[in-house]
Amino acid sequence: MIVEIVSTGTELLLGQIVNTNAPYMARRLNEIGFDVLFQSTVGDNRVRMTQVLSTALARADIVITTGGLGPTQGDITKEVSAELLGRPMQLHAPSLENIKRFFASRRLTMPDNNIRQAMFPEGAIVLDNARGTAPGAVIEADGKTVIHLPGPPHEMEHMLENAVIPYLRERFELQGTILSKVLRTFGLGESSLEERIKDYIKNQGNPTIALLARNAEIHVRLTAKASSDAEARALIADLEGRLRAHIGEYIFGEDEDTLEAVVGRHLAAQNLTLALAESCTGGLVSSRLTDVPGSSAYLAGAVVCYSNEVKTSAVGVPAEIIAAHGAVSGETAIAMAEGIRDRFRTDLGIGITGIAGPGGAVPGKPVGLVFIAIAGPSGTKCFGYNLTGPRSFIRHRTALAALNHLRQYVLGVI
Amino acid sequence: MIVEIVSTGTELLLGQIVNTNAPYMARRLNEIGFDVLFQSTVGDNRVRMTQVLSTALARADIVITTGGLGPTQGDITKEVSAELLGRPMQLHAPSLENIKRFFASRRLTMPDNNIRQAMFPEGAIVLDNARGTAPGAVIEADGKTVIHLPGPPHEMEHMLENAVIPYLRERFELQGTILSKVLRTFGLGESSLEERIKDYIKNQGNPTIALLARNAEIHVRLTAKASSDAEARALIADLEGRLRAHIGEYIFGEDEDTLEAVVGRHLAAQNLTLALAESCTGGLVSSRLTDVPGSSAYLAGAVVCYSNEVKTSAVGVPAEIIAAHGAVSGETAIAMAEGIRDRFRTDLGIGITGIAGPGGAVPGKPVGLVFIAIAGPSGTKCFGYNLTGPRSFIRHRTALAALNHLRQYVLGVI
Repeated sequence: MIVEIVSTGTELLLGQIVNTNAPYMARRLNEIGFDVLFQSTVGDNRVRMTQVLSTALARADIVITTGGLGPTQGDITKEVSAELLGRPMQLHAPSLENIKRFFASRRLTMPDNNIRQAMFPEGAIVLDNARGTAPGAVIEADGKTVIHLPGPPHEMEHMLENAVIPYLRERFELQGTILSKVLRTFGLGESSLEERIKDYIKNQGNPTIALLARNAEIHVRLTAKASSDAEARALIADLEGRLRAHIGEYIFGEDEDTLEAVVGRHLAAQNLTLALAESCTGGLVSSRLTDVPGSSAYLAGAVVCYSNEVKTSAVGVPAEIIAAHGAVSGETAIAMAEGIRDRFRTDLGIGITGIAGPGGAVPGKPVGLVFIAIAGPSGTKCFGYNLTGPRSFIRHRTALAALNHLRQYVLGVI
Repeated sequence: MIVEIVSTGTELLLGQIVNTNAPYMARRLNEIGFDVLFQSTVGDNRVRMTQVLSTALARADIVITTGGLGPTQGDITKEVSAELLGRPMQLHAPSLENIKRFFASRRLTMPDNNIRQAMFPEGAIVLDNARGTAPGAVIEADGKTVIHLPGPPHEMEHMLENAVIPYLRERFELQGTILSKVLRTFGLGESSLEERIKDYIKNQGNPTIALLARNAEIHVRLTAKASSDAEARALIADLEGRLRAHIGEYIFGEDEDTLEAVVGRHLAAQNLTLALAESCTGGLVSSRLTDVPGSSAYLAGAVVCYSNEVKTSAVGVPAEIIAAHGAVSGETAIAMAEGIRDRFRTDLGIGITGIAGPGGAVPGKPVGLVFIAIAGPSGTKCFGYNLTGPRSFIRHRTALAALNHLRQYVLGVI
């Protein structure tokens, strides 16, 4: 069944608010097996809304609208579809009673224009609104299903979950299930990652494979259709196993995992404590690690050492090392990692130094030159990078690389 | 001129990510006088993308797409419009050189499939991508203007502002002007702020007034239409002056100003240096301050002191104070601010301690209890908060409050 989501509202069209309804509906409808293939947004304008709705009815089996069910003259969604479907508007007495009760319960008298919220296209199935005054509606016409939902997200979501999805399940006798699993990778570019598994991508069937770039991470999404959850999970597990043989070393987590949460779990499981000395990332790694509840169990603390003086006084980097190799050097990163580990008496220490730009470059040391060192029970490892991009990207990329190297160090793979 | 925005990408269609590109583009294009009347979203599917693009070309003068310019087989936007417009794909040599340089600068060899990013419909005007490898394109065909932009927001926004808007202004000889100015406020809720200027909002004309809540900041956007930039600026300046009389104390900056950038400018202007001792924010304030280019001029460093031991050893908080008042107390915040100022020999010191949750609450000290202290030439000030919300919100809100108090301290208003 092909679904089109039509979001109505001039505030959406003008970009004054971000549309969170469409992605929510799309996610839920795809999960239960519908194909949301089109999404449209149109303002509160009769001519153009008619245009958009008729286009939607021509290419989709199910058209779901949000917005425009309110009491004002600008709320025209039901009228437009009534005209399009040739169904005159009729008063729905029970809805009018509900709306009157809603106002009475707030000791308010109902303004006359709220009567419009109780008017529906002839033959519509009315959906109560448990969280507001605007009821929704389902209209079956000419083999198409048209569904009108309110615009406020908490009203829409409640109506979708409790009225629309049950209705659609029954109406279309939904069989089977669709499950997705995301494998989160870091350290390999999108095209290089695709190169490694291109045969699986080219010959994909069920499960399908999709690559998504997300803030310097690449996510591999596997989606399986099956008659049962167990069967779908088995299909995903089989493909996942084969993919891991090619890209396993770059997979750091699944679904909602973040690098900091994964690293945190490893540190907690191994009872390891950590301290950081951050120069170019300026506290970014520390703030990500501490964003995880319970991180105080393994993170003793960090020093943001922007100045060479602080690198020496608070982290214990020998001034001679900075003098001999420069603040941005592998030697200094190593001294930072070992110094902070020593000062904070932790199992692990991380040192990060680099040139985030736009200023700070010196001959032989361009913007984007970064060194990350990790000191711990299995010795000290140091990694150098030449990153390009704006300051914030270099800092973000460096923070992720540090978290990922920490993960690899704790797992003993570096 | 009627504009349709076409967002492409299966991840958008499935609702895995929220579409922030479309509202950004709609807002900016409306501001300069175009009518964005339709927005569509379609997946990476040739047949349906062709369907959506031809519908768009039929009802709009300008069609702007985002996404699908990447190197993978799923990136088909340019091919689809080339076929639709009857323009064969051609290699754009300069773009290929740019992409090769991009990889070379990262000491990587360019995968062959990146060549696809240098292929464009015949006659296309190629738009360089300053922030990634995928160039954009403008195609003039049959009286319509088709524009392809990359999907990653920071790439799209840069290309829209620096290439597309200047092109459209010239191409359509935009008459008159529409200018916007944003007054960024912090410290007052949306409804309280609205209450203070409700008469201006109710009687607004030209300029218009819009309140936008943005991550705990409230932005007041003034938009003026006029025959010249100078006239529009004058209209905005007049209204701004009157608004500042009511909410001036809460306005910390304008347009793209961030609290950290504004604070940084004040510190640099007054030749003040700063050090931080962060507990519950875990480096968040420091990472925001160091996100500003040149921040090394005033930020000596910071200590993230999660454990009491580190508060004492690295920041110099007397153990007795923690013992007597607890780690989360005004006394400890003050000792952190004064301790770090002393240790790092800076003009200013900030101490932040609190309970971000979900754990950590003790009798009398609930989740959300936060203390922020600032030590400096005009003495030490301490502020207490009882915040509610999830961990990340409490951390974010605390970081903003600390930056704002620092701004007030440096300006001498607290």
